[in-house]
Amino acid sequence: MDPLASQPVLAASWRTYVADRVAVVDCDVHQIVRDFDQLLPYLPRYYREQVADQGFLIPSSGYFSAPKRASRTDLAGDDAGENYDGRHIGWDFDLLVREHLDAWKIDQVLLTGGSVYNASILPDADYAAALCRAFNDWTIEHWTARDPRLKAAMAVSTGDPNLAVREIDRIAARSDVVAVLLPSGARVPYGSRCYHSIYEACQRHRLAVCIHPGAEATGMAGSPTGVGYPTYYLETRMARSQMAMAHCASLICEGVFERFPSLSFAFLEMDQFWVPGFLWKMDADWKSLRQQTPWLKQLPSETFRKHIRIGSQPMVEPEAPNQLEELWGAMHAEETLIYCSDWPHFDWDDPAMAYQRVPEKMRLSVFSDNARILLGLPMAERLETKC
Amino acid sequence: MDPLASQPVLAASWRTYVADRVAVVDCDVHQIVRDFDQLLPYLPRYYREQVADQGFLIPSSGYFSAPKRASRTDLAGDDAGENYDGRHIGWDFDLLVREHLDAWKIDQVLLTGGSVYNASILPDADYAAALCRAFNDWTIEHWTARDPRLKAAMAVSTGDPNLAVREIDRIAARSDVVAVLLPSGARVPYGSRCYHSIYEACQRHRLAVCIHPGAEATGMAGSPTGVGYPTYYLETRMARSQMAMAHCASLICEGVFERFPSLSFAFLEMDQFWVPGFLWKMDADWKSLRQQTPWLKQLPSETFRKHIRIGSQPMVEPEAPNQLEELWGAMHAEETLIYCSDWPHFDWDDPAMAYQRVPEKMRLSVFSDNARILLGLPMAERLETKC
Repeated sequence: MDPLASQPVLAASWRTYVADRVAVVDCDVHQIVRDFDQLLPYLPRYYREQVADQGFLIPSSGYFSAPKRASRTDLAGDDAGENYDGRHIGWDFDLLVREHLDAWKIDQVLLTGGSVYNASILPDADYAAALCRAFNDWTIEHWTARDPRLKAAMAVSTGDPNLAVREIDRIAARSDVVAVLLPSGARVPYGSRCYHSIYEACQRHRLAVCIHPGAEATGMAGSPTGVGYPTYYLETRMARSQMAMAHCASLICEGVFERFPSLSFAFLEMDQFWVPGFLWKMDADWKSLRQQTPWLKQLPSETFRKHIRIGSQPMVEPEAPNQLEELWGAMHAEETLIYCSDWPHFDWDDPAMAYQRVPEKMRLSVFSDNARILLGLPMAERLETKC
Repeated sequence: MDPLASQPVLAASWRTYVADRVAVVDCDVHQIVRDFDQLLPYLPRYYREQVADQGFLIPSSGYFSAPKRASRTDLAGDDAGENYDGRHIGWDFDLLVREHLDAWKIDQVLLTGGSVYNASILPDADYAAALCRAFNDWTIEHWTARDPRLKAAMAVSTGDPNLAVREIDRIAARSDVVAVLLPSGARVPYGSRCYHSIYEACQRHRLAVCIHPGAEATGMAGSPTGVGYPTYYLETRMARSQMAMAHCASLICEGVFERFPSLSFAFLEMDQFWVPGFLWKMDADWKSLRQQTPWLKQLPSETFRKHIRIGSQPMVEPEAPNQLEELWGAMHAEETLIYCSDWPHFDWDDPAMAYQRVPEKMRLSVFSDNARILLGLPMAERLETKC
């Protein structure tokens, strides 16, 4: 296939355009097991035997999703699907290196997994923790150890917070582990006290906490909206901002950032433009009802700006071009937005397209600095000044 | 008490300022029973006996709400609470007439109830339907029949859609019944097919459907967010826009407006500024996944603009004043926004304050015309042209 014909690539010259100016950090790149059997060597014997007998039992929902497991159609096989092997293409390390890291000259990548998001809503917390540990070991061996550009948001299960803390303590000292990943689907909002020991460990190890769509409407997670189960996958996508808002309100109202003042969260692939109205609403409600949360000493919007970051993908097109800048201004995107590609999904945002849409004064922050501060990565040389 | 000292009233002169220019329609005014015993005469003997034995059994949540049952503190009693009788002040017809209708010269009011929002999430659908019928009869006798400015959004329970249709058919021909009210809390999103017979009846009788916060996190409604139960009432308020978004996506994706092309919905007291980003997100998702909903023939945002209206209260203050106009522009507020006061709650928006904030070119639409079209009320004389 002619690489220039692949839909997301605008032109070969774009590929260097971004990298010549900014050392890009991409905060949402998926690594997926090709087969769950790849995790077997990393599991204890008890679970290997269970799995051999009954399978991996990763709960799934009843929603038809996007075609080709939501993979980039240009890479997954031809349009007729003849060369598509039925698998998510996120298993392919070489494809990631060739078609994303090298092609676009990406400087640093946050691997956000995907295979075990549902661990947090498995009934058996020991099995869930074993799955996360196996996935982390597989990720380190087959991904981060093979390319210094790759960093991991490690998997944990919230089913037993003590086991999550133990897993964090086991691997968080590694320089290639820079964050913890939690799925959007949860039985209890993420500000609740049941999670605080996990956050204590994250703060101690200077790990950011990233929340990414996953596990909603599966296992024990409950419905992905506050009004019950929607009918179509299309609606569950539209529910992502709702879940982000609920977790965000919970984190702020429960005083997570008063308890853990150096902790930061990032909402990845959960939309952007819910932020402005929600900040104003949180401030208004808190002003009139703040006696319910006397531990909060500043406006919710101030806490948000200090501690919460928002992934740029999918970068929705507004009705009129100027509205993009208006809304980004209202959400203080120059400090809250971080670039995400969502490689290798069909709705990914390539760096060049995204770069072009972000106003020039925000580009260095959005494509590099905000993520480096969030993830504790070394600040890049100011490439821009060399041009 | 000095009336000018009461917090929501800016100045006596404001009261006529609005009414001199626009014949105001207020789409969210609450009438509440002082005691549930007031409904006894309207209930069948079986339920009178049940209630005498076991009480009304209206499920409530475990959340502490706002002080003084969220009533306007200036009207509910003094700050020390000494003259406050422990009840919601929405029972007081004379107070409504004096302090709202006459004081602000309101032309038309939509009564949105409140006492039986929880009927839809009661286990027993027959009891729920009987409660709604009783509340409707009480509302007609004690409110709408006493003042021609008052119109009712009738109560129905969704527990048995056939009983809801029967109740609509019973009273919808009355000129003082102009809408159906559904609470935000629901077990199933409002676009689902289980509700379509209700919508058929609404379209047939030209009744709008209004969705108002209520019943979430109580009875069988489930959690008010897509990620479980939050901890504080403060968070449940912040969840209102999330519930609105979920119902909105459901109504549009399920093709409610293709089946019922003259039906309209209004989201009252469920925030405003989730709308712009959500319209763009719905359009983007639908463009790429529209094979899941082949019955939809236009962009979700176009359907929204034709069929869905948004209550203006609470009118959140943005960080910078110009952002209010930017966001209203992005949500096409000149056609989608309808004025709501939320009388008699502590966070109500008096007409003068709201009028002042709405750009002049939108005032006639927001304070009068949009609501008259929605509710089938006679269009008012253009008072504005007389000035």
